[in-house]
Amino acid sequence: MNPSPLPYRAIEWRGHYLRLLDQRLLPDQVTYVDYVSAAEVAGAIREMVVRGAPAIGLTAAYALALAAHHAPNALSELQTAVKAAAECLKASRPTAVNLFWAVQRMLACAYDPRQANAPEARAALLAEAQAIDAENLQMDLSIARHAYPLIPDGARIVHHCNTGPLATGGYGTALGAIRYAHERGVQVHVFVDETRPRLQGARLTAWELQQMGVPFTVIPDGASGHLMRTQKVDLCIVGCDRVAANGDTANKIGTYHLALAARAHGVPFYVAGPSSTIDPATPHGDAIPIEERPPDEVTHLAGRRITPEGAGVANPSFDVTPAAWISGIITEKGVSRPPYHFSEKSQE
Amino acid sequence: MNPSPLPYRAIEWRGHYLRLLDQRLLPDQVTYVDYVSAAEVAGAIREMVVRGAPAIGLTAAYALALAAHHAPNALSELQTAVKAAAECLKASRPTAVNLFWAVQRMLACAYDPRQANAPEARAALLAEAQAIDAENLQMDLSIARHAYPLIPDGARIVHHCNTGPLATGGYGTALGAIRYAHERGVQVHVFVDETRPRLQGARLTAWELQQMGVPFTVIPDGASGHLMRTQKVDLCIVGCDRVAANGDTANKIGTYHLALAARAHGVPFYVAGPSSTIDPATPHGDAIPIEERPPDEVTHLAGRRITPEGAGVANPSFDVTPAAWISGIITEKGVSRPPYHFSEKSQE
Repeated sequence: MNPSPLPYRAIEWRGHYLRLLDQRLLPDQVTYVDYVSAAEVAGAIREMVVRGAPAIGLTAAYALALAAHHAPNALSELQTAVKAAAECLKASRPTAVNLFWAVQRMLACAYDPRQANAPEARAALLAEAQAIDAENLQMDLSIARHAYPLIPDGARIVHHCNTGPLATGGYGTALGAIRYAHERGVQVHVFVDETRPRLQGARLTAWELQQMGVPFTVIPDGASGHLMRTQKVDLCIVGCDRVAANGDTANKIGTYHLALAARAHGVPFYVAGPSSTIDPATPHGDAIPIEERPPDEVTHLAGRRITPEGAGVANPSFDVTPAAWISGIITEKGVSRPPYHFSEKSQE
Repeated sequence: MNPSPLPYRAIEWRGHYLRLLDQRLLPDQVTYVDYVSAAEVAGAIREMVVRGAPAIGLTAAYALALAAHHAPNALSELQTAVKAAAECLKASRPTAVNLFWAVQRMLACAYDPRQANAPEARAALLAEAQAIDAENLQMDLSIARHAYPLIPDGARIVHHCNTGPLATGGYGTALGAIRYAHERGVQVHVFVDETRPRLQGARLTAWELQQMGVPFTVIPDGASGHLMRTQKVDLCIVGCDRVAANGDTANKIGTYHLALAARAHGVPFYVAGPSSTIDPATPHGDAIPIEERPPDEVTHLAGRRITPEGAGVANPSFDVTPAAWISGIITEKGVSRPPYHFSEKSQE
């Protein structure tokens, strides 16, 4: 199956450097930035040039290929360089498990006893990152195929944050599911939570839906419950940054309120993401570390201060939706239904 | 009882004109604008130079005193001028019932058979507006006294939108209750919902709490549920724009999500407002007209576009919280508890 092409790429390996679409400047500007070192890429992840759990994982994988690319020509030195870069990348953002998953997979490749020398390891690491890239796309497409029967014709869908190709480097997860249905002629209308504080919905999802030709309406985060109370809403579908073994799901702040509203109105609430987002080692939601991001994301907007000078703010980047409120968790393997029991085994 | 004075006044009659603090410019600038005609004041209400249900009512009352002030010196012509101004004011904002209540009261005064001539009617209308002003302050203080026992020492309180002196022209309603407790040495900490799209929380409530010396933390609207899930929250208290006979309450968009979260976590959820906000003629929440405000409040921030060019948005300004989720409705008359039955009689 060939998805309709889109005129942008979030993450692209360019032979000897990594090119990222600077998502902080969208939708005003479509600007690409080239990175030659893993440390620079870690900075780009921290500053959210690239964001979205699967996209962060893929970017980190390419960053380690980049570290290997520029490492000395002795295997042990290359391995040391890759390991140091891995530490740096792991410190960039704490919540999304895909980052740690991708870094772990790249480290396993770097230290694979079959690596005979630096050039081979270098080639293997690049091949591994490219494999993750290709798998991302295939996983996204599989997620979309599994979600397809859940999206009725004429569906009015609430979506939170951003889960398109910008967020995965592939086809998109929750937004990929919507895109897939749209590409097959299913009529959909997406209500796009603007997603404060960084406005990934208003800025990125609205922009991606425009590129895809999908009809949509941007709403303030506080409006989705009112929408369900006064109009028809058929389903909610969101991405995920980490799913615990019991199905509790960390996703962008505000997801919890959307799930509460969906539960109150009997609206199905789906979570979509690659199985690498499921972390069987995290037993439940309370064990998921929640990133507290810098206050200026709340105090300032477009460079202008909105709170009074000296006002304290809290800026938790994620919240945890209880498993019992999630109608289905859609991965490339299919749709899981509650009660959820994700074990290492079920993820193999 | 004398409340601690604050260094600002939202609404002030200045002898032959009305002075309003331009709330659109806060917290950056404290700028007062003087109005000499009722039509100008209607524009100021529509454009939200002044906002907050009780403040809108008071402003409209002064606008009608202004209309009388500048009307011809014949009683019937003065009455016609006041009536025309009333129509103009009633068309400014649709949801808050206080506006219609205040206009009705001023019209009754203008057409009172006891008015013998234009100068007397003019004086009576000004006295009526000033009476509403004085009553606003006394009602706010009574609300605060009734709310006082509901705020425990060390209380951690979530507040939505703005309900301080800026919103009432008096002492404040929900924020007045917090202020009253604080002035009596009760330790409180307020979590201030930033309140998209117009950020009345981040801009106005944060600024007013600073003026009052009350400790606070600004949070994105989507974060209050997460806060309740992970930390101690003792109560929520919000204002209201219209309360139906059955207790269903219209308030700033996002209130519904806060009430949902409070219900899920067993956190008491209080509504505070003068009894003029209760509309016994509106049987239930579905009968409350919900204002749809201009799209640029969502598409732009601080003059800068945040959504892509051409993106559609919805901007409902209020939502309706079901009566059953409201732990108490606090007016100047006391604390009502569910089930609520507000009749014309109970409001007398």
